[in-house]
Amino acid sequence: MAQLSLSRRLRRTPFSDGVEAAGVKAYTVYNHMLLPTVFRSVEEDYRHLKDAVQVWDVSCERQVELRGPDAGRLMQLLTPRDLRSMLPGQCYYVPIVDETGGMLNDPVAVKLSEDRWWVSIADSDLLYWIKGLAYGYRLDVLVDEPDVSPLAIQGPKAEDLVAAVFGDRIRDIRFFRFDKFAFEGTELVVARSGYSKQGGFEIYVEGSDLGMPLWNALMEAGKNMDVHAGCPNLIERVEGGLLSYGSDMTDDNTPHECGLGKFCNTQTAIGCIGRDALLRVASEGPIKQIRAISIDGDAVPVCDRHWPLMAKNKVVGRISSAAWSPDFNTNVAVGMVRMTHWDEGTELTVQTPAGPRQATVHENFWI
Amino acid sequence: MAQLSLSRRLRRTPFSDGVEAAGVKAYTVYNHMLLPTVFRSVEEDYRHLKDAVQVWDVSCERQVELRGPDAGRLMQLLTPRDLRSMLPGQCYYVPIVDETGGMLNDPVAVKLSEDRWWVSIADSDLLYWIKGLAYGYRLDVLVDEPDVSPLAIQGPKAEDLVAAVFGDRIRDIRFFRFDKFAFEGTELVVARSGYSKQGGFEIYVEGSDLGMPLWNALMEAGKNMDVHAGCPNLIERVEGGLLSYGSDMTDDNTPHECGLGKFCNTQTAIGCIGRDALLRVASEGPIKQIRAISIDGDAVPVCDRHWPLMAKNKVVGRISSAAWSPDFNTNVAVGMVRMTHWDEGTELTVQTPAGPRQATVHENFWI
Repeated sequence: MAQLSLSRRLRRTPFSDGVEAAGVKAYTVYNHMLLPTVFRSVEEDYRHLKDAVQVWDVSCERQVELRGPDAGRLMQLLTPRDLRSMLPGQCYYVPIVDETGGMLNDPVAVKLSEDRWWVSIADSDLLYWIKGLAYGYRLDVLVDEPDVSPLAIQGPKAEDLVAAVFGDRIRDIRFFRFDKFAFEGTELVVARSGYSKQGGFEIYVEGSDLGMPLWNALMEAGKNMDVHAGCPNLIERVEGGLLSYGSDMTDDNTPHECGLGKFCNTQTAIGCIGRDALLRVASEGPIKQIRAISIDGDAVPVCDRHWPLMAKNKVVGRISSAAWSPDFNTNVAVGMVRMTHWDEGTELTVQTPAGPRQATVHENFWI
Repeated sequence: MAQLSLSRRLRRTPFSDGVEAAGVKAYTVYNHMLLPTVFRSVEEDYRHLKDAVQVWDVSCERQVELRGPDAGRLMQLLTPRDLRSMLPGQCYYVPIVDETGGMLNDPVAVKLSEDRWWVSIADSDLLYWIKGLAYGYRLDVLVDEPDVSPLAIQGPKAEDLVAAVFGDRIRDIRFFRFDKFAFEGTELVVARSGYSKQGGFEIYVEGSDLGMPLWNALMEAGKNMDVHAGCPNLIERVEGGLLSYGSDMTDDNTPHECGLGKFCNTQTAIGCIGRDALLRVASEGPIKQIRAISIDGDAVPVCDRHWPLMAKNKVVGRISSAAWSPDFNTNVAVGMVRMTHWDEGTELTVQTPAGPRQATVHENFWI
């Protein structure tokens, strides 16, 4: 592992003191902010995430707030997903594309009210795209990054832990819905969502003052649930097919290549940017697409660059994320594969830094 | 120092193999890309930068390319600096502001021709702002991130080293000008510029294939000049008052607060975004501004968050970057100070993680 030089530019969060006290071992940088990646070890964190409950500092999921009469119009301009039936209290996963249909981000849109939205972003400055459009279109809307830092509670015991702090009403929240709950006199948005397949919640903490009190309240309430500080886990998210913007997809890719075609209602999402390009893609289909890939042999090294996927001597795709999965007893990976070789069971060779390995294409991720 | 988890999302560069072979000790992340921060030690790298010559992988200074009939119009829309007299072959430092005059980036604009520009960016996805505006304004211009990776040669012997590889014509390039020079049959843009006060050049390497051949050619040619791999140096850049976007300024700040008012020709840069707000600022002046600050005592810790500057018990500013300077035998720092306390020689107290220290405001940086 490499060393990271800290500076003010790599922003701390309202929970950084708690993260440090819990013994964080490594970070990545995400939206110019520190995102923990390891507490005990990636493998131990993985086991614990699947067995118990973790509190995650995901402040780096920054919000872009759209506020004003044109907020809804701007939101629909941004995404090919049809938002007409979306109600306040709902969260939608929304691919954001440019005029050519290239992915700029894959955030979650949180509809607070008809004229107020949060866009909870992946790792790119989507604020700049939205501000540029709002200004260029002369829309009647304010666009900024509010001081809101999500704290995720993930794992099979997440509901019990969040209920212990916020009350049993939390159990009524459905998947990708949110409601407001009081903590120390302040109403906070709490959504049933998160970047794992283990279930859980994300609490949108406004301002910094409540950060450590909330962190500490969760740690205290979870003592008998084996609560521990955690973070998005590489193994678990690859098993579950949760994509990472910047790793598994970039603005070179359409949503359809990323398997996100189901979130594109290109026929009905009238006025969205990239519609012309995506109508073409939707009718013809992509010529390459994200697939689950298993890689034979013992644990692969860290995937810090594309690994070519070969059929005989021809490149037919590439791996962008990979990890050893203890539960599935194989290396699990995310790859982009050309249609000629994307069928279930196709055998390929992947060129890893540890040499060539046999790889197999799968229709579905592991969970 | 913390550990950094590598992933494909933190992009490698065409020079990463050379950086690793040279024994890089630490990185930061800048524009979603690895930027080395330490080779031998920050202090040794500093001494060597001031005495000899270094080759820097600053690929993270990504380019945004503007190409087409409206490229010049879009460029002037982006910045309050008057670009009318700028000629192809020139580089301009251009503050980029939003409609409220808040800094979005502080890049260098490289005018390749009347209808083709590169914007060599600091750490924010300026591509998204420019693309959003171009789309919103329906401008006839292509905006993208080309595969161009700058390699900087910095230090007192930089000219000799670059001349050894590209020929003596390189000596004719004036400060913030560029010309084209052949390397292995490919014409490359070479500018006299760089993020240090020691003088030098930046070579804009197109594509990846030439990366390591150029790196190796410079290392080979510089053997008798004590060439070494290096990187932007915290101590040297603070001594010289080179600001870091994200650390020393953000979109909360106007160019005038950052001491960049001299790059704002708000009266004549007609049509630029933020003009209304900046005309107001230009006439009234900012109420806080960047200042050089010295901090008494032995070496301060890493400045990874704002340190409050106090006058009696009142906060009157904050430190955003700081380092021990061997040459000036004091801690040098960058601070934002309110006008009531920004005069030369004003004594303040700075609250560092190592306790309160006496600090002094200076009119000028050290070099």
